[in-house]
Amino acid sequence: MIRVGVVGYGVIGRRVADAVAAQPDMSVVGIVKKNPDYKARIAVSKGFPIYALDGESRKLFEKAAIPIAGEIRDLVKAVDIVVDASPGEAGAANQEIYRSLGCKVIYQGGEDADVADVSFVAQCNFEKAEGKNSARVVSCNTTGLCRVLYALDTNFGVKLARVVIVRRATDPDEPEKGIIDAVSIDPKIPSHHGPDVNTVLPNFKVISAALKIPTTHMHVHTLIVTLRDATVTKDKVIDVLNGTTRVITVSKGEGFKTTGQVFDYAREMGRWRSDLYEVAIWKDSVNIIDGELYFYMGVGQEAIVVPENVDAIRALSGGYTRDESIRMTNKTLNILK
Amino acid sequence: MIRVGVVGYGVIGRRVADAVAAQPDMSVVGIVKKNPDYKARIAVSKGFPIYALDGESRKLFEKAAIPIAGEIRDLVKAVDIVVDASPGEAGAANQEIYRSLGCKVIYQGGEDADVADVSFVAQCNFEKAEGKNSARVVSCNTTGLCRVLYALDTNFGVKLARVVIVRRATDPDEPEKGIIDAVSIDPKIPSHHGPDVNTVLPNFKVISAALKIPTTHMHVHTLIVTLRDATVTKDKVIDVLNGTTRVITVSKGEGFKTTGQVFDYAREMGRWRSDLYEVAIWKDSVNIIDGELYFYMGVGQEAIVVPENVDAIRALSGGYTRDESIRMTNKTLNILK
Repeated sequence: MIRVGVVGYGVIGRRVADAVAAQPDMSVVGIVKKNPDYKARIAVSKGFPIYALDGESRKLFEKAAIPIAGEIRDLVKAVDIVVDASPGEAGAANQEIYRSLGCKVIYQGGEDADVADVSFVAQCNFEKAEGKNSARVVSCNTTGLCRVLYALDTNFGVKLARVVIVRRATDPDEPEKGIIDAVSIDPKIPSHHGPDVNTVLPNFKVISAALKIPTTHMHVHTLIVTLRDATVTKDKVIDVLNGTTRVITVSKGEGFKTTGQVFDYAREMGRWRSDLYEVAIWKDSVNIIDGELYFYMGVGQEAIVVPENVDAIRALSGGYTRDESIRMTNKTLNILK
Repeated sequence: MIRVGVVGYGVIGRRVADAVAAQPDMSVVGIVKKNPDYKARIAVSKGFPIYALDGESRKLFEKAAIPIAGEIRDLVKAVDIVVDASPGEAGAANQEIYRSLGCKVIYQGGEDADVADVSFVAQCNFEKAEGKNSARVVSCNTTGLCRVLYALDTNFGVKLARVVIVRRATDPDEPEKGIIDAVSIDPKIPSHHGPDVNTVLPNFKVISAALKIPTTHMHVHTLIVTLRDATVTKDKVIDVLNGTTRVITVSKGEGFKTTGQVFDYAREMGRWRSDLYEVAIWKDSVNIIDGELYFYMGVGQEAIVVPENVDAIRALSGGYTRDESIRMTNKTLNILK
């Protein structure tokens, strides 16, 4: 039984805690929260012991009369692995705690790549993380790109990938960060996503551009990929994508006219929070023009990294193969393939 | 004095009527409307005689007690050139009227290319339309792409242009067509825009992909262009764009963080309806990576084709050079360069 602590209980932390609790070989010892807000109430209702982030945080919980089990150091001492799901780059601030207490740790994609021994996507480089002290599960967009580009590279050879990402402005729990009726343009091209893919898949160049738009569900990627194999056909590409774990294909003919229908479909799967762990590729968009492969894909920003966090826990622990871990995670999270 | 009739008084027709009325060498004889809605009130207030589309339409105006000057045929007989700004592909239905009455006509980009003798963007192919009986002013996105790609091709040679277009869902006067909180995906790649550019600029391939998003101001294009000249630098590209008529550059440093600020800037120019006739290119997005040119540009969907319609009137009439016409149009519409 791998004893896991989850630091941060926001969009990622809450999902990882539930996913870990669902594994037959793991248990959630507790979660760390900074503020006694409504998310603390969720943790209490699920029976996860709450640890305060620090002394100041402890006082807030005492004032709110929410019982805590200790502070972050108490939790770190009691676990084998911490999943740090602190917001933005706040995870790096906790690094010294994990290091001094000799605890293995998984960071999220908001952190710089050098925070951890390895940047991680299960199906791409599970072995590279085995037995290491730390891993960084890359961000949602990077994870989606890695799954798909790794499959394309393995089967056809990728020479150059260009990707235009249309990003949802915010998650539903932070509507005040949203933009309305405008496209937000950070004019830096390449955006950070392409180089971030290269932290997992270093063998070909990925150039990305990213725009932010007023939606809350899913990022949409347009990929333009130059492949090494000039004999590739649309059908071969679709076959490979259909055969790739954590990737599904959808089509307009089936009624997937917008990201809204993909979200609606995910809600029918009976998963916690209507989460979509898979990348969704519009198979009727797949086309090859003058040797360049084009297609659209959707990335659910909240949940896609959840299976990666579970697999990263097993990789750092050691004793599992990539396929064993992915199979266990997929089964418990109801990921069909 | 070129006598002009405007058929259709929606987003384009209203703008073209005002722009024509502002020209020293043109007059608006009247406009054609189908329904006596609030836009008829606008035409009345501006003193444009209204002609009913047909007998049924005439009855609606009589019932609404809005005086009309006749029906479409009466207007067509009284003018030298008609600008048909009917919605969607409805212009083609009027083709027989123009033909039988021997009237020159300008169609809009919603029509198929074969509706007219030539597809038109003033700075690209004014001469091709001179003296012809009909021209099609291409759509907003196609017009923007043509202006920019023509400048790049003339200066550096374009080998292949790839463009991902993030389209505004609807114009402000048709909010009921809008989507909310989703990206609409028509999975056909290439979208119609690239081939449409080739009706004006046939010498290089343009491959486009287009997504629809919940905004009302401006389309945003991400361009990835392979140039023939391998020695091109960012600065040379920006110089060429700055030297191109009806193209402006903007930057994040100046506060253009979203399309919202570009709209806000346009509103300060004191033009009718806060219109933006220019393509806006984020100069700080311009980058060249491995010989491919990347940048973002914004296209105001309502007004960009207005100067093209004015120039197309002069081209069909004959007797003007390209530069003369563009200069006159720019001056009257307050287009700075």
